[in-house]
Amino acid sequence: MKENAHRDRLCVVLVATRNPLNIGAAARAMSNFGFLRLRVVNPYEVAFREARSAVGAAPVLASAEEFKSVAEAVADCSLVVGTTAARDRELHHPMRVLADAAPAIRKHMAGGQVALLFGSEKRGLANEDLAFCHWLLHIPTRDEHVSMNLGQAVAVCLYELARRQGDAPLEAPEPAPSQDVERYTALLLDALRESGYIKPGAEASTGEKIRRMVRRLELRAGDSEVWLGMLRKIVRRLKSGK
Amino acid sequence: MKENAHRDRLCVVLVATRNPLNIGAAARAMSNFGFLRLRVVNPYEVAFREARSAVGAAPVLASAEEFKSVAEAVADCSLVVGTTAARDRELHHPMRVLADAAPAIRKHMAGGQVALLFGSEKRGLANEDLAFCHWLLHIPTRDEHVSMNLGQAVAVCLYELARRQGDAPLEAPEPAPSQDVERYTALLLDALRESGYIKPGAEASTGEKIRRMVRRLELRAGDSEVWLGMLRKIVRRLKSGK
Repeated sequence: MKENAHRDRLCVVLVATRNPLNIGAAARAMSNFGFLRLRVVNPYEVAFREARSAVGAAPVLASAEEFKSVAEAVADCSLVVGTTAARDRELHHPMRVLADAAPAIRKHMAGGQVALLFGSEKRGLANEDLAFCHWLLHIPTRDEHVSMNLGQAVAVCLYELARRQGDAPLEAPEPAPSQDVERYTALLLDALRESGYIKPGAEASTGEKIRRMVRRLELRAGDSEVWLGMLRKIVRRLKSGK
Repeated sequence: MKENAHRDRLCVVLVATRNPLNIGAAARAMSNFGFLRLRVVNPYEVAFREARSAVGAAPVLASAEEFKSVAEAVADCSLVVGTTAARDRELHHPMRVLADAAPAIRKHMAGGQVALLFGSEKRGLANEDLAFCHWLLHIPTRDEHVSMNLGQAVAVCLYELARRQGDAPLEAPEPAPSQDVERYTALLLDALRESGYIKPGAEASTGEKIRRMVRRLELRAGDSEVWLGMLRKIVRRLKSGK
């Protein structure tokens, strides 16, 4: 992954998190995706201390900043985005789905600091926290089960913020040249005659069918020699064993 | 979120998962994003039992299927995709980043069943598991910290798969299910042993190489019976002719 010069302009803000595993998981995802600035607001003290053991998350946790209020935690940010699972609450806030929110956040990061807020496991962000948000984002989940695990929600949001498609699509494998495909066909027909699969008299029609089937295999250039070698050995043994 | 009619065509396959929290987290993400078919291969028994308490994941866990081997777990799937954090291993497999992998997987789901494999927390997927995969995907993470938490990796993959509703997918030829591909592999190995192509002692390494080559053929459902019939005949003749 290429480094994004602006990733240090985003703070992940965890508000009133209770479970140390979730703080650790959030920090690990941050480290995975290169967003290294963690802020915590009123975490359970024990939770914050225990989180320090999460795999690979130590540097993020060690440099995490602790705040007493959302107001202080977002004070130096010019865009504050809240995350919510709610769909129909009277939120009085513009709401974007994550895929639409990400470009807006990235754009802002080019010129200013962004805070991305995650609420507590039980209640999410309280109304008084939402009041600090410019707008909200939600991850599209199933109506029957909207509420995500905190660590997973952080991972999905940061994945989307870091998301880019591969420059080069999957390289198409080089196909075997026709002469190899035809050699393979001939050897296969040999093997089928020797084994009694092709009945005398049915040569022509079966041969044509098999020639088509071999083409549908789309043998790869890199593999064709090996396939030919196998068939040669099989045909030789069939002939010698008669 | 609109329901995607094909989401039941994807199985999430957890291989040798150790931590019950991770099985529970995977199941929760599946429930969030509407992919409800979980398969587990050789989980630690305790892990699987304890996972049943994960928030909102109970239905997914209750209907999870347990298998003794990857071969059995993917038998009815015609596309098998492995997930890996590795970048530079000699994987001998095509590799896609997630954002590019998702459209290919969705396209396949229109016509066939897909297995998405996740390896154990410690080691990821073993080489013998990778041999069952048609190709691999990875989530782009920071070079300094590539390895994601299992539950978070599952969440991110399923988020991306659910991210955009595909329009009417292109008609693609229906691929043969893995059990047919595996039958073909077994017969081919039989033929190669009988013909002397495989030297005694080289069984394991050659077998794995050939298993991968057969996957690269991408046998079609409509052709697989004929291919199997041919090989059966050849093997029978090889055995009788000795």
